[in-house]
Amino acid sequence: MKRKIRMGMVGGSINSFIGPIHRKAALMDGQIDLVAGAFSYLPEESKATGEALFLNPHRVYDTYDEMFEKEKNLPGDQRIDFVSIVTPNHLHFDPARKALQNGFHVVVEKPMTFTVAEARQLKKVVEKKGLILALTHTYTGYPMVKEAKHLVAAGELGNIRKVYVEYPQGWLSTFLEGTGNAQASWRTDPKRSGAGGAIGDIGTHAANLAEYITGLKITEVCAMLNTTVKGRKLDDDSSMLIKFENGATGVLLATQVAAGDENNLNIRVYGEKGGLEWRQEEPNTLVMKWLNRPREIVRAGWPYLSDAAKGFIRTPAGHPEGYLEAFANIYRAFTNAFFDFKPGRKIDSNKYDFPGVDEGIRGMQFIETVIKSAKSSSKWTKMK
Amino acid sequence: MKRKIRMGMVGGSINSFIGPIHRKAALMDGQIDLVAGAFSYLPEESKATGEALFLNPHRVYDTYDEMFEKEKNLPGDQRIDFVSIVTPNHLHFDPARKALQNGFHVVVEKPMTFTVAEARQLKKVVEKKGLILALTHTYTGYPMVKEAKHLVAAGELGNIRKVYVEYPQGWLSTFLEGTGNAQASWRTDPKRSGAGGAIGDIGTHAANLAEYITGLKITEVCAMLNTTVKGRKLDDDSSMLIKFENGATGVLLATQVAAGDENNLNIRVYGEKGGLEWRQEEPNTLVMKWLNRPREIVRAGWPYLSDAAKGFIRTPAGHPEGYLEAFANIYRAFTNAFFDFKPGRKIDSNKYDFPGVDEGIRGMQFIETVIKSAKSSSKWTKMK
Amino acid sequence: MKRKIRMGMVGGSINSFIGPIHRKAALMDGQIDLVAGAFSYLPEESKATGEALFLNPHRVYDTYDEMFEKEKNLPGDQRIDFVSIVTPNHLHFDPARKALQNGFHVVVEKPMTFTVAEARQLKKVVEKKGLILALTHTYTGYPMVKEAKHLVAAGELGNIRKVYVEYPQGWLSTFLEGTGNAQASWRTDPKRSGAGGAIGDIGTHAANLAEYITGLKITEVCAMLNTTVKGRKLDDDSSMLIKFENGATGVLLATQVAAGDENNLNIRVYGEKGGLEWRQEEPNTLVMKWLNRPREIVRAGWPYLSDAAKGFIRTPAGHPEGYLEAFANIYRAFTNAFFDFKPGRKIDSNKYDFPGVDEGIRGMQFIETVIKSAKSSSKWTKMK
Amino acid sequence: MKRKIRMGMVGGSINSFIGPIHRKAALMDGQIDLVAGAFSYLPEESKATGEALFLNPHRVYDTYDEMFEKEKNLPGDQRIDFVSIVTPNHLHFDPARKALQNGFHVVVEKPMTFTVAEARQLKKVVEKKGLILALTHTYTGYPMVKEAKHLVAAGELGNIRKVYVEYPQGWLSTFLEGTGNAQASWRTDPKRSGAGGAIGDIGTHAANLAEYITGLKITEVCAMLNTTVKGRKLDDDSSMLIKFENGATGVLLATQVAAGDENNLNIRVYGEKGGLEWRQEEPNTLVMKWLNRPREIVRAGWPYLSDAAKGFIRTPAGHPEGYLEAFANIYRAFTNAFFDFKPGRKIDSNKYDFPGVDEGIRGMQFIETVIKSAKSSSKWTKMK
Repeated sequence: MKRKIRMGMVGGSINSFIGPIHRKAALMDGQIDLVAGAFSYLPEESKATGEALFLNPHRVYDTYDEMFEKEKNLPGDQRIDFVSIVTPNHLHFDPARKALQNGFHVVVEKPMTFTVAEARQLKKVVEKKGLILALTHTYTGYPMVKEAKHLVAAGELGNIRKVYVEYPQGWLSTFLEGTGNAQASWRTDPKRSGAGGAIGDIGTHAANLAEYITGLKITEVCAMLNTTVKGRKLDDDSSMLIKFENGATGVLLATQVAAGDENNLNIRVYGEKGGLEWRQEEPNTLVMKWLNRPREIVRAGWPYLSDAAKGFIRTPAGHPEGYLEAFANIYRAFTNAFFDFKPGRKIDSNKYDFPGVDEGIRGMQFIETVIKSAKSSSKWTKMK
Repeated sequence: MKRKIRMGMVGGSINSFIGPIHRKAALMDGQIDLVAGAFSYLPEESKATGEALFLNPHRVYDTYDEMFEKEKNLPGDQRIDFVSIVTPNHLHFDPARKALQNGFHVVVEKPMTFTVAEARQLKKVVEKKGLILALTHTYTGYPMVKEAKHLVAAGELGNIRKVYVEYPQGWLSTFLEGTGNAQASWRTDPKRSGAGGAIGDIGTHAANLAEYITGLKITEVCAMLNTTVKGRKLDDDSSMLIKFENGATGVLLATQVAAGDENNLNIRVYGEKGGLEWRQEEPNTLVMKWLNRPREIVRAGWPYLSDAAKGFIRTPAGHPEGYLEAFANIYRAFTNAFFDFKPGRKIDSNKYDFPGVDEGIRGMQFIETVIKSAKSSSKWTKMK
Repeated sequence: MKRKIRMGMVGGSINSFIGPIHRKAALMDGQIDLVAGAFSYLPEESKATGEALFLNPHRVYDTYDEMFEKEKNLPGDQRIDFVSIVTPNHLHFDPARKALQNGFHVVVEKPMTFTVAEARQLKKVVEKKGLILALTHTYTGYPMVKEAKHLVAAGELGNIRKVYVEYPQGWLSTFLEGTGNAQASWRTDPKRSGAGGAIGDIGTHAANLAEYITGLKITEVCAMLNTTVKGRKLDDDSSMLIKFENGATGVLLATQVAAGDENNLNIRVYGEKGGLEWRQEEPNTLVMKWLNRPREIVRAGWPYLSDAAKGFIRTPAGHPEGYLEAFANIYRAFTNAFFDFKPGRKIDSNKYDFPGVDEGIRGMQFIETVIKSAKSSSKWTKMK
Repeated sequence: MKRKIRMGMVGGSINSFIGPIHRKAALMDGQIDLVAGAFSYLPEESKATGEALFLNPHRVYDTYDEMFEKEKNLPGDQRIDFVSIVTPNHLHFDPARKALQNGFHVVVEKPMTFTVAEARQLKKVVEKKGLILALTHTYTGYPMVKEAKHLVAAGELGNIRKVYVEYPQGWLSTFLEGTGNAQASWRTDPKRSGAGGAIGDIGTHAANLAEYITGLKITEVCAMLNTTVKGRKLDDDSSMLIKFENGATGVLLATQVAAGDENNLNIRVYGEKGGLEWRQEEPNTLVMKWLNRPREIVRAGWPYLSDAAKGFIRTPAGHPEGYLEAFANIYRAFTNAFFDFKPGRKIDSNKYDFPGVDEGIRGMQFIETVIKSAKSSSKWTKMK
């Protein structure tokens, strides 16, 4: 019989940015309960977070190791079903691996790991344990992104020729990490963020979005990385020419020094027969462009949409859904998979439409390739 | 000690539109649990809804009377704290009144009651019992609407002169109620919807939005009501000239036959020194217009916003929040009030910033006044 | 044999607003030469204007009476073919009448005359003399307005139900006429502007636009006129409910105190099958809304447009045309008519698609009716 | 004494695209008369064009050589003052050179010549003859582009860091040159268009716009050129990473296969203190972005603009100006220079704000550098 799914959380204290986002996303649809957590490496903060979230204090842990150990031994009608890992990047791999090894499904923030090697290792664990791993590339959770993917796959644009994808932000235009800002501090710190700055934090979202919508893999990049703000330890700006497996080409840019920009992730895809355009800041609109007839404004909530999009819409047309709902759609897809899950039955993330371990590997490859390209004086660097 | 708030629901079966909306809005912030419900006048549907929501079957009731009776007698650490009433309009007053009489706080859909008389009666019950009643005029839950109210109150626009407020929808452009559509059926049925069609369903939202942002009461209307679609029993279209208590004037329109429109609630307010503009379909943007300098695009999520808005924002700038978050903000304000509540302490809905029983009375007066004006050959009809 | 058309001008000195606009509009397409003028009631200013425009000083006149008299007696290959009358409103009727009586075609600014009586009289002169009179209701010169009219006439929207038309400006939000501003001075002066302020200056444009696109006459209005700014002598704000001959209803508003607004003339028309939306500030876009499929963005310059629009487009799609081109389209239509003109052949302004004497009468009726309605305590006032 | 300027035209028959554009732009402000032309290499077509334009048949020539020869010998109060050269690219240099050598000022379409060498040679002629040469990089004629340049120069954005400039079109998404389309035929023909396709036709506009607004020179490019449509002889698509002299970096793209796009030239510039954004398709709006305060919407026609922009605006705010007015602004600046011109007095194109021979050389260098870079396997190619 169907029952509510029980979630434990690694990271995401009350002072974090992404913890509350995950919790709202997970809770919104009423299918998931948060019942346990190791919310911080500071036991006091973990405890305070558990209290603020009305958790049973016995299920608020000092470490994720403790959580996995103790939860594993709880009765089957109490123990957590999965963990959400929302720590900084350097703390994704270890808890993900251990969670899986202890029999828990995993939802993990991107980038999935610190290195490509870890990512590949994690895939092996996922496969060996036969469990679900969902990666929160949030933006593919937007219904109109799913509609875009559907329309491309249905051949509406014909063969794809051009892809322009951008993620400009402006929040790191100044030396924010020097002011004690927690978000800026870890995201610009190679020890916690990884080898990539902007390229890892937001460039991976752009690459993932492009590959998701087009169904095409990026095969080569020609990249420029910049550290624009003095004193910063990682890149805060990137732009690159890109090639896709079918011969399509394009541009990808991700920057954190586009002063005054918010989170203007956007993509344009052009094929032989038409083009499409989507912007995260106005996510319920998908613009379709045609060779010989008026543009169409495809909008969330209408009956004319594909089932691919409809399964992830909560409100009627004109009642905007946003970032939290896109996030919740990753959890919704995970939830759908969870309810179908049986030990020994392999879950295909594409079928349920959530980013999985393969997307996690692609992300790490992307970071590695871009950094390699940026250092090279040759034009093109292969991504593999 | 703070604990999760326990919600019961009246109406809102799995087949309803607004039930799931309320539940997502209530659950999102992790402060409220849904623990009981009388979800339908059809016991089977109520039961099925309870199951789908993973409720304890003992707390899924056939009628709200039963729910109030039984919940009242549960131990204090189990029984519901409040009920959400999400039934069609003719079933707001009775359960609201009884809930209050049985000691439960109330969240109720608008319009609050069927008549002005009922609305006034309900206010007496609220006052007598000293409990909280929140009315889900969702749109004032949007942070940028709160910012607009704040900026007007701060005098940024000077004395207000003009108010244009609109709520055009297109979904009733055809005789949809003849196709078995449940939403269309009850909303165009005077027995369930009340004396007003479009004017009650969405006109009240427009009026509430105008009064909320300007802080001014509408004092006179000159209205035209139309039943555009043949066979329809209620108005599906309205427009009116309006006057405000300070001498400002304007136009209010609410229509359900603006073919192709979604939920384009929007408002423009002009004063001596400037103007503002807000649209529900792009709710994170507030346009400020000035006499001698460039327009400003005020956006959700920025540090420059007032505390009035900041307390109701969940995501950083450029990560759009939408309708569900606006809805959740009514619950958030209710939650804040609940945590401050003590028997005998009067809760001021304005302080917590949620629509209360007075807004409910205004809404009923508005419907009554507009209908009276529409029937009159005199230009102006006073609203009181 | 075809030759350039020779224009004379009444009013429109170098210090005026609308004079240069008319000249650019008339000259742009290379079909018209400006050869004469009585540019001001101040002979010195008329002379200075003639010099600035490189005119032959002998053809720069002190008065329009003088111009008509002298030009009439010039040889046929020199004398002006028509006059453009661009004086303040109180000086439209007399020069228009005299120009016609002296055998010159006329292009005249709106409102066509000072009163309905004058307008009717002018029509008689036009008919008696069999000459062309074009009225510069500029906004119907926009190609996408013509496309809108075409689509409505073609039945794309089905029977029209709702019309919302607005002309909000903000430039008279302060007592500008007290600062010596020439535009503000005459436009707020009943002796030069007429009985209507905002309603005559811009309300007539809104009414004309609505009737032009829908092909429907306004039959009744319920109007409110306000003089918002202290000390002003005419209305600076208007709003009204309107009824059309086919039973459609709507709202018309025209205001000059929408602080911070520019020239936001806009219209929305809804029928049984769809809706359309056009905004003067982004005039190359026409939004088409449909009941069950995505909105379409119809754009100037595309091959898919109707001939009605194509005949008035100068640039390819995406190279925006603006106000001056819309204005030039009135002259273009007038030019087309002129080249077809022969004494005794009646020119049908509808065929050439320019506003003529009938639109001039409608405009004066509109002003008169609105003022009458505004003074009345009855709801509806018939327009006839 | 000031008098109307007399223009002759090379190319621009009635069947051409750009000829009528130039004529409207030149005539609009009433400062210029078209009096002569060699409109086509087909004498019949030149003649027919002269007739359609009401020219004196004696001044409609079979060749530009003939025109220069004959006009030169006309009396000083009749002969042309300048020529506009609006032929395909391969016919820019020769008539420009000869016009100058015969004492006529020149307005010439871009790209200025066929090669860098020709461009440099032309500069020598300009300098030797001391005459005016204006190049119609139309887009810098837009007032809001001038405002953008002004604001950058005034330091509003601080040191410039990022420049993104794009010119996407869709009109060559199919093999249009195979259908007999005249525009497509010559623009994709290396013999008439030059070594660059998209990069020459529109890429040069993008580069010019970036250098104009920022006041910075592009120093290096890393380019990819594609011929997307089968059978096409020139590139129809380009994208490149770029570096500027101050260390700023960015992306430039110009494509003609962005299916469904019109003329979406756009630029974003970001500095330490803010950013700006401008789009040709909505040219009267300039978006200013700031680090800690709301975006501003700077609009054409307002008193708050700089003189740099005000000198090129014809209509009040909200009455849109478009492409023809931008074009006319090149002629207006040329006209201003012409009226100041005296033999021996050097005209500084920057002072009058029109693109001159140096911009022409930059354009040719840009084409050459991009083609070289596209063929190179090295990442960066210097532009000099």
